[in-house]
Amino acid sequence: MVRVGYDIGGTNIAAGILDERNVLICKKSMPFPRGRGTQAVIDVCTALYRALLTEAALSDAEVSGVGTAVPGSVDIENGVVIDAHNLDFHHTPLAGLLHESLQKPIAVINDADAAALAEHGVGALKGTETSVMITIGTGIGGGLILNGQLFRGGRGNGTEPGHMVLRNGGRLCTCGIHGCAEAYCAATRLAKDGASFGLCGAKEVIDAAKAGNPDASELFRAFVDDLGSYLASIVNLLDPERIAIGGGVCGAGSFLMEPLRANVKEKCFFETCPEIVVATAGNDAGIIGACLIAP
Amino acid sequence: MVRVGYDIGGTNIAAGILDERNVLICKKSMPFPRGRGTQAVIDVCTALYRALLTEAALSDAEVSGVGTAVPGSVDIENGVVIDAHNLDFHHTPLAGLLHESLQKPIAVINDADAAALAEHGVGALKGTETSVMITIGTGIGGGLILNGQLFRGGRGNGTEPGHMVLRNGGRLCTCGIHGCAEAYCAATRLAKDGASFGLCGAKEVIDAAKAGNPDASELFRAFVDDLGSYLASIVNLLDPERIAIGGGVCGAGSFLMEPLRANVKEKCFFETCPEIVVATAGNDAGIIGACLIAP
Repeated sequence: MVRVGYDIGGTNIAAGILDERNVLICKKSMPFPRGRGTQAVIDVCTALYRALLTEAALSDAEVSGVGTAVPGSVDIENGVVIDAHNLDFHHTPLAGLLHESLQKPIAVINDADAAALAEHGVGALKGTETSVMITIGTGIGGGLILNGQLFRGGRGNGTEPGHMVLRNGGRLCTCGIHGCAEAYCAATRLAKDGASFGLCGAKEVIDAAKAGNPDASELFRAFVDDLGSYLASIVNLLDPERIAIGGGVCGAGSFLMEPLRANVKEKCFFETCPEIVVATAGNDAGIIGACLIAP
Repeated sequence: MVRVGYDIGGTNIAAGILDERNVLICKKSMPFPRGRGTQAVIDVCTALYRALLTEAALSDAEVSGVGTAVPGSVDIENGVVIDAHNLDFHHTPLAGLLHESLQKPIAVINDADAAALAEHGVGALKGTETSVMITIGTGIGGGLILNGQLFRGGRGNGTEPGHMVLRNGGRLCTCGIHGCAEAYCAATRLAKDGASFGLCGAKEVIDAAKAGNPDASELFRAFVDDLGSYLASIVNLLDPERIAIGGGVCGAGSFLMEPLRANVKEKCFFETCPEIVVATAGNDAGIIGACLIAP
């Protein structure tokens, strides 16, 4: 039996098939049908499902279940997307609608949780009982593995690690609060601050810092210090075995990871610091995580 | 069968007996034998044990086990106090030494974890599966209940919530890092800042704020805002059902709790905010928690 997973984003819907050894044997994507309503999304998902089965030469009967990752808050128990702004999904019974079309058991999950599950299942967090996945992008997303399982939040709301406060009273976050980690540790911060000295985007800031540009170097140093304090907060609260970091900034490789590890180690209250590693499931993390929660 | 628990502090060693209904039926304390070595501590504990049994008219055979709470880091598995500065315990095999004297199974636990266990067992966190205890004193201590059990840290180091970073780069914490929550949310902060306008101690600051003193009011407002952001960080990461707060500042009652709840609610990323309540086990929390982990 195989599982099918969707990673529904505001630009594309990606889908794939995971086999019994947790290998992604096939994937496809189609544009998100923006502004055309929920049924259009279900239709795209259904088309992707058929295309995947055809390509993998599998029959519908060989699919045990379907998982779906969405960028928003999810009522996991009922498979309802409570709010996914980029998809224009509000209290959308996604599991029910997909089940109607595919006639398969459906599970729905937040995309940051899916990434954590993917890293835990097949990636950088494999083998851990207590670990953390942090994705650094436009914002900060994340998921927690506690007792060897995805932590769904004490009240079922999951985790929103980007809105831990890192500099109380500081920069305004997109959520309306001043000083959230997201306002300092997202890639957007590098892009925004870099613009003030003429650099365009996080990657350009990192490249300029690598090349020794003093403004970019100072910005990058401040970014690493903020990110280090942020991860140290999580370390000192949860004492995890390992933290995996994902997102475009990880392309900086050891130029980011080495000073970051040293920074967290300095702020870690315990005798030894957890491992801090780059996530490995990459762009497929959403699909893989969605497959992994598929019934 | 009953359990005996110790709360070993740098000033006093308190001890008590918990019956099968988790009621503390008897307690006593003796001064900590400062500077007289580990065996003197064991002797005081042994004397307290005998005195408690006599007072409660119980025989040694009715004690199932003994728990010990200490202000420091603990290797729970082996019953070793790794480091408890105030007790001058360093890699001290406390469980082994107490067992030698009392001939009972012994468990050792950090005192903040003991307080969390006490609140979960008989106090303000009773009935929760995911909850947080934060004690506000000279420093910030705390314990987490996850999956209905005391969380011992992903690597067995427990939790050090006072060293989450709240204002990165800010005030120097006693741990040597700038900006820890402890530097802003401990009672010490009220005392230290209040001294600059002639007030002596956290309680005096709170009383002056209540009485409308403008300096004290502004300091108290800033304290509540920092504490609110700190608790919001924990809320947004763990989505707990409930947070209990202990320590002397809770004597301020609704003067603290009402603005604090409003502050956390504002910064909580989820639709509803967890309950924030005052801890109820009070000064006995250490003894009760120690009894609760007793074998």
